[in-house]
Amino acid sequence: MIGVGVGPGDPELLTLKAVRALENADVVAWFAKSGNSSNARNIAAHYLRPTAIELSLLYPVTTELSTKDSAYQAMIQGFFDESAERVAGHLAAGRTVAVLSEGDPLFFGSYMHIHVRLSKRFPTEVVPGITAMSGCWSAAGLPITQGDDVLTVVPGTLPADELVRRLRQNDPTVVMKIGRNLPKVRAALIDAGRLDSAIYVERGTMQAQRLTPLVEKSDDRAPYFALVLVAGQWWRP
Amino acid sequence: MIGVGVGPGDPELLTLKAVRALENADVVAWFAKSGNSSNARNIAAHYLRPTAIELSLLYPVTTELSTKDSAYQAMIQGFFDESAERVAGHLAAGRTVAVLSEGDPLFFGSYMHIHVRLSKRFPTEVVPGITAMSGCWSAAGLPITQGDDVLTVVPGTLPADELVRRLRQNDPTVVMKIGRNLPKVRAALIDAGRLDSAIYVERGTMQAQRLTPLVEKSDDRAPYFALVLVAGQWWRP
Repeated sequence: MIGVGVGPGDPELLTLKAVRALENADVVAWFAKSGNSSNARNIAAHYLRPTAIELSLLYPVTTELSTKDSAYQAMIQGFFDESAERVAGHLAAGRTVAVLSEGDPLFFGSYMHIHVRLSKRFPTEVVPGITAMSGCWSAAGLPITQGDDVLTVVPGTLPADELVRRLRQNDPTVVMKIGRNLPKVRAALIDAGRLDSAIYVERGTMQAQRLTPLVEKSDDRAPYFALVLVAGQWWRP
Repeated sequence: MIGVGVGPGDPELLTLKAVRALENADVVAWFAKSGNSSNARNIAAHYLRPTAIELSLLYPVTTELSTKDSAYQAMIQGFFDESAERVAGHLAAGRTVAVLSEGDPLFFGSYMHIHVRLSKRFPTEVVPGITAMSGCWSAAGLPITQGDDVLTVVPGTLPADELVRRLRQNDPTVVMKIGRNLPKVRAALIDAGRLDSAIYVERGTMQAQRLTPLVEKSDDRAPYFALVLVAGQWWRP
């Protein structure tokens, strides 16, 4: 099994190793929300062999239920168990399976749920990918860390007071999983006195990329995969 | 100007975009410690055009002086000013200059010192690279973050009490710039009760890679670019 990071969106940001893994895979597995196309598959589409078997792993739920809900927890764990067994079936039959992951497989990626279930049963390799945050700070031309800086990466799903506490540490900070959390993230940035250092990036490195100082974004609509980059104190744009 | 991330060490971990940038560059610039070869150039060597002009930017000092020393600060700022002017000379003559960076250019990379001096004077693009930490947690097969995790990336150069404070937050943590800081980092991990979750990685993704639970590494010798990965609380190896 190979966990393959396909990077943040630009198909040119796959590594040579990822492309080779896709070219050699008998089976290509990818996650998607039921009824939607897979972002990871879209990014990698150009490099898939036409003869490869495709294995779609379709989330039964995504944002309809709270992630704290026990029904959600049971359903999602069952989904990962079943997905892992579908991958295992191919591996047991001697096929090479590449499991696609947006960004980097072991950094907030769905792939890790397959990895923890199968990496002790089958030989496993992980091909790292360019993270969304690297793609975004590169697109913004923003040096994110230097010298003795500490980088903090926080999901926007955290409670408001925890976001404020993290932002008050004044580290260069990346806030991921923006989506419906944008009003809360904006308020936390204001509370921590850092709104002026925040850059909003949507669909980073893709053709539809949108990149703007957050203070200039007048609405609070954002896709789940949008990011906010908060520059360190030494940075002057 | 193009800042080109060449990734953590394995030449297959360059992106397609990085390879293309190197193939099209008139001038390839790289940093090295005076008297040493450039790690970034070694990684990218296979992809450089034989006819490209090479511009070596050789650090006049590295670890002989404390980074807090004002003589060091003056010397290093002068070095970056002069390096930027050498790059600017080629750009002003109409040549495309690729500035190599190990890992990712804007994440603790020397490239950023050229970037901040030239990106307003000349059209600039940054090609993100696989970070050393992504290469290392992929090699270790360690899922570093999931769900509501916060990732903290700290340089081992921080004072001991600050390392302990950061580690006590119990986030998945990456400690960079290990080198001579290893005894201090080890003591901080013990103090924070997290030594058992720490994985030491030296030359990650390279042929000479060494990867071991830190608790099993009996000496405190480490190269500057070694990393320590500290798993989150949910992780069981």
